[in-house]
Amino acid sequence: MLDFTFQLPTRIIFGRNRLEKIGGEIKKNANRVLLVYGGGSIIRSGLYDRIIEMLKDNGIFFAELSGVQPNPRIDSVRQGVELCRKHDLEMILAVCGGSVIDCGKVIAAAYYYDGDPWDFFTRNTRVTRALPIGAVLTIAATGSEMNGNAVINNDETKEKLGLFHPLLYPRFSLLDPTLTFTVPADQTAAGSADIMSHIFEQYFSPTPGTYVQDRMAEAMLKTCIHYSPIAIEEPDHYEARANLLWTSTLALNGLLSAGKATDWATHMIQHEVSALYDVTHGLGLAILTPHWMQYVLNEDTLPKFVQYARNVWQVTAADDGQAAREGIDKTAQFFVSLGLADRLSEVGVEENQIEEIARKATAYGSLGRMKKLDAGDVANILKAAY
Amino acid sequence: MLDFTFQLPTRIIFGRNRLEKIGGEIKKNANRVLLVYGGGSIIRSGLYDRIIEMLKDNGIFFAELSGVQPNPRIDSVRQGVELCRKHDLEMILAVCGGSVIDCGKVIAAAYYYDGDPWDFFTRNTRVTRALPIGAVLTIAATGSEMNGNAVINNDETKEKLGLFHPLLYPRFSLLDPTLTFTVPADQTAAGSADIMSHIFEQYFSPTPGTYVQDRMAEAMLKTCIHYSPIAIEEPDHYEARANLLWTSTLALNGLLSAGKATDWATHMIQHEVSALYDVTHGLGLAILTPHWMQYVLNEDTLPKFVQYARNVWQVTAADDGQAAREGIDKTAQFFVSLGLADRLSEVGVEENQIEEIARKATAYGSLGRMKKLDAGDVANILKAAY
Repeated sequence: MLDFTFQLPTRIIFGRNRLEKIGGEIKKNANRVLLVYGGGSIIRSGLYDRIIEMLKDNGIFFAELSGVQPNPRIDSVRQGVELCRKHDLEMILAVCGGSVIDCGKVIAAAYYYDGDPWDFFTRNTRVTRALPIGAVLTIAATGSEMNGNAVINNDETKEKLGLFHPLLYPRFSLLDPTLTFTVPADQTAAGSADIMSHIFEQYFSPTPGTYVQDRMAEAMLKTCIHYSPIAIEEPDHYEARANLLWTSTLALNGLLSAGKATDWATHMIQHEVSALYDVTHGLGLAILTPHWMQYVLNEDTLPKFVQYARNVWQVTAADDGQAAREGIDKTAQFFVSLGLADRLSEVGVEENQIEEIARKATAYGSLGRMKKLDAGDVANILKAAY
Repeated sequence: MLDFTFQLPTRIIFGRNRLEKIGGEIKKNANRVLLVYGGGSIIRSGLYDRIIEMLKDNGIFFAELSGVQPNPRIDSVRQGVELCRKHDLEMILAVCGGSVIDCGKVIAAAYYYDGDPWDFFTRNTRVTRALPIGAVLTIAATGSEMNGNAVINNDETKEKLGLFHPLLYPRFSLLDPTLTFTVPADQTAAGSADIMSHIFEQYFSPTPGTYVQDRMAEAMLKTCIHYSPIAIEEPDHYEARANLLWTSTLALNGLLSAGKATDWATHMIQHEVSALYDVTHGLGLAILTPHWMQYVLNEDTLPKFVQYARNVWQVTAADDGQAAREGIDKTAQFFVSLGLADRLSEVGVEENQIEEIARKATAYGSLGRMKKLDAGDVANILKAAY
């Protein structure tokens, strides 16, 4: 186990009908907020009206930034910063999924920076201050509700880059499983693949002696495997939605990475796919993950894959190599069983772009910790997944 | 799953040789501290000298409260408050195990209260303010390093009572596994029983649909079962000590109780045993737990015990009743295998005091959630464990 520091300053408010709670949480921080959201889904579901009512009941002034896209654009960040400055806003309230929260986080930091917000991602500047952030989650997937991460797309440079800063932890996040009842089957499936991928990126690690972290990761993987089919079959199954929502938060709040080197190669590759083709993040991960597993499976990494197969999938094969392969096959079959595509060719990726994706994914160096991947390795994984 | 709120404001600093880190952490909060510790173990191990040096290097003024006992006494709290007032101290630095941290927490709150600190426990007053608290842990057991709980003994009233307040979370806790290398075998065993009991109290719950919490609890139980014998056999086994130490913190920081009703009957009974006989807390829990399990096992609670037996102990018996009993037997055998006594008669408890212990344990009402226990039930459990 490696040395680590660990702290979770975000206040999670979890459960049914607790929206009225957050008026007080906001007023601890601000009287003027930027309401950030995505498309029409929160309007259709009635959540938008309930939030507006809650803000008005609490006498909170607000301006709106709508239309934040999945794979959020740096342009939305720029617009948000302008609105905050124009209206002297004091806090960000992000409503929706991870893309909206990520966008809100970068607006919060960029408010205090005179240059262009993309500078945070190119490392031309660092976060030094940020407006407080609150989140209302409507999909189980991202983990952004209880961490300091943000990932943003730049259409001009065709890049998708990430940022972490402790100031970007939301002050509070409302997790109401009933708000996820309206998430359609394909998005529920992609969200589950995203959660599981977050767990894999931390579980598959070369750091020895991380027994408690690994058993907790397996606990969360089993939860996803158990409840994802139920949530797809029965969208208003509270228990399934609650377990998936809480697991999505626990899977990326630092609990599973404390004391470990983590991999993140699959995410880095997927980011480049999404930057070029706007593939749903979780869907891209579902396609790539089994091929990443197969590619990095070797003599050194075998024990971890055997442990995964036996503990998560109850694989009983006596031969270690066979057990590991069965675990990987079951992973791929599980994603397909959720209705997710299993080929990059099915989601619009062009074969002649594979080398370019591989080149961009490794532009800042090789990827991964389980096995270091260079551009050639990444291209091989992409071809296998094509 | 029940509704919940969850937040972990304590900053955990985990790893080897990170003592020099905490000078800066203290100075964020204070320049004058009360150093609280127990007996001579931190002097013998050299930790005391290292802490004094660190305080001096950082120009931090300190006064000392030593001799805080396991099952800490309200008298120590009174002394601590007096020292803080006399020397205008601004922070508590607790060094040792949970007893010392608990004592430090109550000093921190009582500093701002004019009456007697025992009033917090009799509910005659409430915590409204507290000095900041920092902790340096030297044993894996308590969980007090990352929660707002404190338990204190009152020798005059022969009571042991608990308190929770969000203001009592330490600002930081240093968890250095090497500081636990010198914990002797019997204390290591009792500490592990304490951790496991914390997990049991939250795992055995009547709340349905807490799948992810239950799988995480099993993950932590397996960690204790795997590493406790190793740490006893090989006291300076870093991996074993690190996993036990981190598990002790995770087991009682709210992660396992989020969304659940929790039991705590065994702890309440043990507190009365300790209040009368000063039995080591974890040892008392190890003796009582299997008998509590046997007593509350019935048709309603059977499924949970079957789940426990199969998932934690890999019991394969097809019959549910038999599986549950095997799980309980394995629990008892495990504690004995760690060298712990398994009878109250072996640790000085007098048989003629059983009714009195049962009466006091239920003085504020019946105990437990898995099965409600009145004084008669508690006496039955104590007799079975005698």
